[in-house]
Amino acid sequence: MNQEQQYKDCIEACLQCMNACNVCYVSSLKEYELAMLRECIRLDRECADICDLAAQSMLRHSPFVTQICELCITACEACAEECSKHEHDHCQACAEACRRCAEACRQMLVAA
Amino acid sequence: MNQEQQYKDCIEACLQCMNACNVCYVSSLKEYELAMLRECIRLDRECADICDLAAQSMLRHSPFVTQICELCITACEACAEECSKHEHDHCQACAEACRRCAEACRQMLVAA
Amino acid sequence: MNQEQQYKDCIEACLQCMNACNVCYVSSLKEYELAMLRECIRLDRECADICDLAAQSMLRHSPFVTQICELCITACEACAEECSKHEHDHCQACAEACRRCAEACRQMLVAA
Amino acid sequence: MNQEQQYKDCIEACLQCMNACNVCYVSSLKEYELAMLRECIRLDRECADICDLAAQSMLRHSPFVTQICELCITACEACAEECSKHEHDHCQACAEACRRCAEACRQMLVAA
Repeated sequence: MNQEQQYKDCIEACLQCMNACNVCYVSSLKEYELAMLRECIRLDRECADICDLAAQSMLRHSPFVTQICELCITACEACAEECSKHEHDHCQACAEACRRCAEACRQMLVAA
Repeated sequence: MNQEQQYKDCIEACLQCMNACNVCYVSSLKEYELAMLRECIRLDRECADICDLAAQSMLRHSPFVTQICELCITACEACAEECSKHEHDHCQACAEACRRCAEACRQMLVAA
Repeated sequence: MNQEQQYKDCIEACLQCMNACNVCYVSSLKEYELAMLRECIRLDRECADICDLAAQSMLRHSPFVTQICELCITACEACAEECSKHEHDHCQACAEACRRCAEACRQMLVAA
Repeated sequence: MNQEQQYKDCIEACLQCMNACNVCYVSSLKEYELAMLRECIRLDRECADICDLAAQSMLRHSPFVTQICELCITACEACAEECSKHEHDHCQACAEACRRCAEACRQMLVAA
């Protein structure tokens, strides 16, 4: 796989993860058992903001892409770990999107 | 007051409001009575994102400043109304920052 | 088409437009004839930031979605008009993405 | 200086840097000698986006603050180095704001 394709795949994974985090965030805020979702809500937002920065930075071939992808891996792994504790569909979908995004960022770093 | 000063005041009000919204958001997520703060948490985030866009757009003299300030007024008024319902200091401080920001945006629109 | 699908299509159009604007922006900055692309570079960034807000706001079912989509139409139309003046592939692709995004936002507003 | 004050100072330095980067960006786009400012324009934007994330992350006591501040130092130092090459007032002001922001982030990391 060439580098341009790897960029595209990683950008797509970041945007999918941003989407899943935003959906999980707003869905969690509507759940009956709200208190146990505090950390999930909080991490969804931090992770969405970081995925957004990562996707846009890659699209603009920012000179800081490596460090941003490392940050994105940290955020995605933390968010995946938290979301995977909850049985709601939106939490499970978010955990899965976070794991895929972290993996795509790792592939980027290997290729960089 | 000249236009450049009005810009500066409005940018400052938007950034102060973004700050207050972020503080209220994260403080609300830690409150014991979480369920009654759902809408407050939700609006804090939407309002912070819009204030951020407004401040940066004014700094860059974006051609869309008028429409963005109108949007910012809508968001700030909604967030102020919701936050003012709650007695927490962070909610009251946020409501006050939102009202000041909406007023600064209104002054901008009059001068524009 | 149901409302949920319309949301999805509009979010996708906004993210595609954000991507095209970011690519056009960074590609324009590398062009030899830079001076004639000043307005293109400037609008690409404003439009990307607004499309980003629009996509995320729809994902979170923000109460300000209508006004944000109206803003997005304004930005996309201005960016499309400017980019369509230039023959570079990235400008033409960006103009096309902007027009599709403006149209998707218009469909959203009709359905809302 | 206690930690809360250090947070406030660093947030303020990040927002001042974001402002200076946005002003330098839009002012550079209007300069006659545009070609030599390509890298300056490009870094202004990347740095502004990262300072924005840093300020908001600190306001929300994000668990990723350390890594984000490290990223912010990298971006600010690169932007300061580039801007300091140009004699325009906006470039010099931006270089100075970037250096202050990098220093504030460094102080944060020592205290963290």
